Amino acid sequence: MNLGCIYHRSQDNMCYAKNESELVIQIQTGKEVDRVFLNYEDPMESEEFGGPWTWKGHPEEMLQVRELENHKWWTISVFPPYKRCGYFFELRSGDETCYYLEDGVRTDGSFMTGNVRLQYFSFPWMNPADINVTPDWVKDTIWYQIFPERFCNKKASLPKKNILPWAEGSVTNDEFYGGDIPGITSKIGYLADLGITGIYLTPVFEASTTHKYDTTDYRKIDPAFGTEEDFRELVDTAHKAGIRIMLDGVFNHCGYYLPYWQDVLEKGPESAYWNWFMVNKWPFDQTDPWTYDKKYYSFHFTAFMPKLNTNNDEVAEYLTETCEYWIKEFGIDGLRLDVAHEISHKFCRTLRSRLKALRPDFYILGEIWQDSMRWLRGDEFDSVMNYPFHNAVMDFFRDKEADSRNFQYRINKCYSMYMEQTNQVLFNLLDSHDTARLRTKLPDEDSFFQALCILYTMPGSPCIFYGTEIAMEGGPDPDCRRCMPWDAIESGAYQETCDMVKALIRLRRQEPLCRCPGLVFSDPEPNSRVITYRRQEDNRSLTVCINAGSTCTEVPEGCVLLSRRLENRQLLPGGFAVIK
Amino acid sequence: MNLGCIYHRSQDNMCYAKNESELVIQIQTGKEVDRVFLNYEDPMESEEFGGPWTWKGHPEEMLQVRELENHKWWTISVFPPYKRCGYFFELRSGDETCYYLEDGVRTDGSFMTGNVRLQYFSFPWMNPADINVTPDWVKDTIWYQIFPERFCNKKASLPKKNILPWAEGSVTNDEFYGGDIPGITSKIGYLADLGITGIYLTPVFEASTTHKYDTTDYRKIDPAFGTEEDFRELVDTAHKAGIRIMLDGVFNHCGYYLPYWQDVLEKGPESAYWNWFMVNKWPFDQTDPWTYDKKYYSFHFTAFMPKLNTNNDEVAEYLTETCEYWIKEFGIDGLRLDVAHEISHKFCRTLRSRLKALRPDFYILGEIWQDSMRWLRGDEFDSVMNYPFHNAVMDFFRDKEADSRNFQYRINKCYSMYMEQTNQVLFNLLDSHDTARLRTKLPDEDSFFQALCILYTMPGSPCIFYGTEIAMEGGPDPDCRRCMPWDAIESGAYQETCDMVKALIRLRRQEPLCRCPGLVFSDPEPNSRVITYRRQEDNRSLTVCINAGSTCTEVPEGCVLLSRRLENRQLLPGGFAVIK
Repeated sequence: MNLGCIYHRSQDNMCYAKNESELVIQIQTGKEVDRVFLNYEDPMESEEFGGPWTWKGHPEEMLQVRELENHKWWTISVFPPYKRCGYFFELRSGDETCYYLEDGVRTDGSFMTGNVRLQYFSFPWMNPADINVTPDWVKDTIWYQIFPERFCNKKASLPKKNILPWAEGSVTNDEFYGGDIPGITSKIGYLADLGITGIYLTPVFEASTTHKYDTTDYRKIDPAFGTEEDFRELVDTAHKAGIRIMLDGVFNHCGYYLPYWQDVLEKGPESAYWNWFMVNKWPFDQTDPWTYDKKYYSFHFTAFMPKLNTNNDEVAEYLTETCEYWIKEFGIDGLRLDVAHEISHKFCRTLRSRLKALRPDFYILGEIWQDSMRWLRGDEFDSVMNYPFHNAVMDFFRDKEADSRNFQYRINKCYSMYMEQTNQVLFNLLDSHDTARLRTKLPDEDSFFQALCILYTMPGSPCIFYGTEIAMEGGPDPDCRRCMPWDAIESGAYQETCDMVKALIRLRRQEPLCRCPGLVFSDPEPNSRVITYRRQEDNRSLTVCINAGSTCTEVPEGCVLLSRRLENRQLLPGGFAVIK
Repeated sequence: MNLGCIYHRSQDNMCYAKNESELVIQIQTGKEVDRVFLNYEDPMESEEFGGPWTWKGHPEEMLQVRELENHKWWTISVFPPYKRCGYFFELRSGDETCYYLEDGVRTDGSFMTGNVRLQYFSFPWMNPADINVTPDWVKDTIWYQIFPERFCNKKASLPKKNILPWAEGSVTNDEFYGGDIPGITSKIGYLADLGITGIYLTPVFEASTTHKYDTTDYRKIDPAFGTEEDFRELVDTAHKAGIRIMLDGVFNHCGYYLPYWQDVLEKGPESAYWNWFMVNKWPFDQTDPWTYDKKYYSFHFTAFMPKLNTNNDEVAEYLTETCEYWIKEFGIDGLRLDVAHEISHKFCRTLRSRLKALRPDFYILGEIWQDSMRWLRGDEFDSVMNYPFHNAVMDFFRDKEADSRNFQYRINKCYSMYMEQTNQVLFNLLDSHDTARLRTKLPDEDSFFQALCILYTMPGSPCIFYGTEIAMEGGPDPDCRRCMPWDAIESGAYQETCDMVKALIRLRRQEPLCRCPGLVFSDPEPNSRVITYRRQEDNRSLTVCINAGSTCTEVPEGCVLLSRRLENRQLLPGGFAVIK
């Protein structure tokens, strides 16, 4: 056996309480391992203090196994009667057996080194206060991301400046088109009809740019977007239509014109806000648009966006109270944190405990593009933007050489990184204001629908960017932020595309199996571009088939819930089928 | 290359800020890997948002490598100028090269999958508030653990009951011998002469047993041990002698006679303290001495010690205020938390933040016998009882078949598990009130001194149990808790033993290299029982040689700081030498 491949640590995604009674234990092994047994028991049931180790646990086979690029990943749930769990692993490969304990791997079963017993692994006590609880509603939510400046211009009386006529085609970040909050409110009916149950709004607080990631007042709606009353009406209208509202909090940095920063620029170290930022030199050149000289820390190296010092308790308090204000006064349901990975963990913890105390089912989503375990232990965020999922889907469809086995490894990795309660609310996306649009990234309409079929049949909380329901085009930022072509939509120009997206959304909403945790890939043929996976819970399951290859493939028998390019049981290249 | 052996996750001991400027990065590889380079850079220095990945970092060789049972463990420190660090690894084995990124291992250097760049690893921002800061004084401290009931009986006027005459030989937990706090105070001179700079007291709060792990009043010194004034005098006398005081807080459970528990027993769910405990049934049989029936949760299954519910904020507040009281009123320097792994993390975080706010250099030590990474991230404990270290030393000396290579692997593992700032304050011990005494566990006096030589020349914060300086004997609990034989000590009966322990302590105190982080084992011959390691910092080093074999071995040239059984440069079996 390849002993060096075996990995387990009794923490994070590898050993955690899923709820008050269920303990999930996972282990990574080499690919040659055939079977793994967890031997577990209350460690105090048969142990004498300080005496030799007689405890050997009860064996239970770990039957859930997922294949990764260089490993197998095994999972089991156990229910410790006294909240304590001691355990070790028994691994089998062919005729070989080995035992894996915290003190190391042993090929015999003596569990002794010299006269001292080997240390088993242990989850010492399942304390309720430490369980990672994520909001229940999120796994059932169909998200829709809106970039307000480009979604819908409705209220001409707002103080908008230099507004261009609503237009189709490419855009830049300097062009204002006058999209506003009343515009969004006016389209709630459209969104409800599409099947949307959650809106993620990019920033709406006062700021000078089109994207508003440069906040100048955290407690004020940008005047060009609307008034506080306009925002209240949006939230109320959305809630009546069964749609939740998530705001975007830009707490890593602020806009140059935030009064606190202006105070620092004026008074330097004498400013009461000096420690709200990260200034390293004084005085400094205020005309240089970059911070490569470290005069102060900023987002990227952009002098225009100075970093807020979230290490400072005053800043943490100010931002936390800000969030409490938007929850208490307007009833928002969630918060996305921009550039969340650069904010201090200490602040994230304070923020979570305060917001969850106010509203236990509030959803906190971090913008982190990478492995985010550090933020997902249950004391900071509920979830992160699932870019590893995005990348796996994009790579598969954009590279005709990629095979479905590699896709399987990467998706399996996505769902091996975190706890189950996180997986259920992972913010799955295929495009956003930070990437090119889905339709533009993919080579054809077939793969566009196939990617969406995957999005809506995977564990997590799916989100599309506004306009993706009509296959709107657009390159990377800023071009992905085009104006929504309402006239064309209303004339029915995108009916067919939109109907297919609606059908996928309806499938997700009507079929609980699409939202369950169980995900099992079928082993693909070598070099195949046919993806087949089962979504299963208890004894029920459905099968999703994606044919990204160049020949037909046969799908399993059963009731076809939704399909494209399916003829009898032959799935044509470019097609997908969901079968129950 | 054995790709499945490679492991890194950008968190915990594998990637962390050691201080505001230094980032430590570690990686596990297979044994066949010869060289590892870290390629790192500020990820924003050459990256275009959303564009293809051109960033490749600057390479720097990872030169510090430690061998473990099935792996190599590589370490490097880098100093990111803008607090951000993107990185990946380049591994070489013979002619083979591979690259390890967050998205996986690649044997070519293109770093692209399809059209999407591979994700590098990232430490997004070194926030000061998140740095794991441990107290500076602890690594220089020479600890001495005292079990007060058996250390010294000084104050006859205290209300002691059924006291037996002070005696030598075996003891039980039911026998009271009348040791008290004034007794400890009277021996501060003795301890200062021994070289001790920190005392760890097992519990001193009111309780009914000899060991006092069954607290009945958290804010009162046990009357048989002394008054609050006696305790104040101990702390003050110790401080004047340069000795710190650490108390033992038993917060996982309490004594049966704690008034809050008695209130629950009387009133049941009507009690104001009902949620201070973990009661599952009511009414329950109050005569059953066990809790196997889960009527309530307790320490072990002992009905006598009901678990406190540290998930409850009221309990957390009560216990935190208790600690604040002992710090503010008496000036204690540290707190050991008994059964620390069963307490809620939430409470541990509250406790830490409050106690560190009161006194930033307060030392918080958890009693955890296993891998404790979960508690050592910088927001809970500073350190844990280092039983893995204890086990490695015991196994080596108690099993004549064990070889020094295995010892090396296990000690290297101890110092690979946590952050450097934790390693420096790890509570290294060879015996305690929970184990047999060192002299009794080991086969002879030679290995006794060899083990102590290891204790005092390893990174961490060494502790001996009272009486170990005179090689006191005693089996496992309760026999390890014998009375300290002051008459014999004062008559000089243990002078020789005690002088050697003093010399080891003096060596540790006088030679900073004994306390530095640098630890490098020499590669031993196969099946050798000679241990050789260098303690090094910058360009200075000293060598420790332990001969547990059956033939002589030659030690390096240099100035002999301390030795036993060394003749010229020949180290006899059973000897040790520390050479500079």
